[in-house]
Amino acid sequence: MTVSTRGRGLYEFTDDVEAWIGRNKFRDGLLTLHLQHTSASLLIQENADPDVRRDLEAFFGRLVPDGDPLFVHTLEGDDDMPAHVRTALTAVNLGIPVQGGRLTLGIWQGIYVWEHRARSHARRITLHFIGE
Amino acid sequence: MTVSTRGRGLYEFTDDVEAWIGRNKFRDGLLTLHLQHTSASLLIQENADPDVRRDLEAFFGRLVPDGDPLFVHTLEGDDDMPAHVRTALTAVNLGIPVQGGRLTLGIWQGIYVWEHRARSHARRITLHFIGE
Amino acid sequence: MTVSTRGRGLYEFTDDVEAWIGRNKFRDGLLTLHLQHTSASLLIQENADPDVRRDLEAFFGRLVPDGDPLFVHTLEGDDDMPAHVRTALTAVNLGIPVQGGRLTLGIWQGIYVWEHRARSHARRITLHFIGE
Repeated sequence: MTVSTRGRGLYEFTDDVEAWIGRNKFRDGLLTLHLQHTSASLLIQENADPDVRRDLEAFFGRLVPDGDPLFVHTLEGDDDMPAHVRTALTAVNLGIPVQGGRLTLGIWQGIYVWEHRARSHARRITLHFIGE
Repeated sequence: MTVSTRGRGLYEFTDDVEAWIGRNKFRDGLLTLHLQHTSASLLIQENADPDVRRDLEAFFGRLVPDGDPLFVHTLEGDDDMPAHVRTALTAVNLGIPVQGGRLTLGIWQGIYVWEHRARSHARRITLHFIGE
Repeated sequence: MTVSTRGRGLYEFTDDVEAWIGRNKFRDGLLTLHLQHTSASLLIQENADPDVRRDLEAFFGRLVPDGDPLFVHTLEGDDDMPAHVRTALTAVNLGIPVQGGRLTLGIWQGIYVWEHRARSHARRITLHFIGE
């Protein structure tokens, strides 16, 4: 599965995941998602108020500032090392139980790719299901 | 499974998880825990000295201060957006191998719900086991 | 599996994991890694430029300083409570799909033990595979 991003921010793809489960007629088991990158994350977060995503982005932008003189790895741009740090502070894999053909997400939970680079990217995600 | 919380802090429920494994006579496989919320986390941490939990709480309270003027999402209270940030900085799912009917936790590891909101909550957790 | 560490930093063991998969002739399924400690982490990060690891270490060293007067739990040394915080900010378990006998890691991804204590340690990791 690929999620296209257009700069920093949270990109929800819960519907794509549920469609994949439906297409494969999976009922009960465990879904694992793995993002194949080191400058973006997978995140489960609130999908109601968009301000939550804006504030998450603002907080991480302040916590891990671009162009921090602490960083030596700067060849790929001011936003590259911050992207690696933000990935380390979050996660690149998620395991979510599936029951009756549905993800057991909470009512406000959505699945996001969190893009940490300033430019657009196509982010590849491996999906794995075990069960029936 | 539900874990009741009474404000911020770490609530251990390792015994409840082990009792669930025992009741179901699970022997060898993989246990996945998923917390269905966006303002609390699942954490594996030291279960010996209570000061470790106190210090974790103190550090996160300073790192993500309540009422930070950076935040726009403030309608649900000063502690709400910090709770979302703290959840993003930690995790809502865990995968733990089970061997011979026991979690393969280290000797000092316990499983906790980390409540990030100031008020009491009932936190729902989905448990999934695959194996035999 | 055990990974020996010699003070703070990232220790790659991707090859050991792939060798374990090969030895067991696993083809398709889910690999779960669980680190049995509360002062070190498992991390998937870039395995190209060593400066990335240096910068990750520098950032976390500044974010969670040794000897922070905020901390009460200091009996085991100035670097102990920071190690617990750094573990909470990262993860102790990973789930990675396996396809055709290979981890579905991205081209730049490596699997690391991140040692958060100043001294050498032998870090124990449980590996679990389900599939065929």
